Amino acid sequence: MLMLKAKVYVTLKNGVLDPQGAAVCSALHALSHNDVTEVRIGRYIELLLDDASLSEEDATARVKAMCDALLANTVIEEYRIELEEVEVPCAAQ
Amino acid sequence: MLMLKAKVYVTLKNGVLDPQGAAVCSALHALSHNDVTEVRIGRYIELLLDDASLSEEDATARVKAMCDALLANTVIEEYRIELEEVEVPCAAQ
Repeated sequence: MLMLKAKVYVTLKNGVLDPQGAAVCSALHALSHNDVTEVRIGRYIELLLDDASLSEEDATARVKAMCDALLANTVIEEYRIELEEVEVPCAAQ
Repeated sequence: MLMLKAKVYVTLKNGVLDPQGAAVCSALHALSHNDVTEVRIGRYIELLLDDASLSEEDATARVKAMCDALLANTVIEEYRIELEEVEVPCAAQ
């Protein structure tokens, strides 16, 4: 069965401090990976939409509404959306 | 100044239950986004490496070592690495 998969990349806006990334960076240095100068950590979200007939614009608009409402804190985060069609075995649906 | 940026996508292996994704899915349904059938949540990590002279193989091998040691729990997670060269203003380095 054909479905739409939306891939959402949520990252901190430039200039926003990333304490999680800083902690990982110092941990990598402690593991002697000293060539790492900066680490930024975000979220990678995959959404499966069961309406494959949606146009790309409609699907993007829908996922954008989900991001603005729930998936991203748009005060300090920004997001990028990618869409792709995927074949999903019927049992999994 | 030219630097290497590694983008790491850490996701749960297929078949591993994603409680975080399930919670987000039901929250989206509560916001009347009922066309979402599944949500999978992973980490998106950007690493800045200050050795732009590294070959692609060496850089990938290094980032792979970082993933195996720290960035991913390889028992239940898998990861994908992408590399790109970026121009970074000297002051930021």
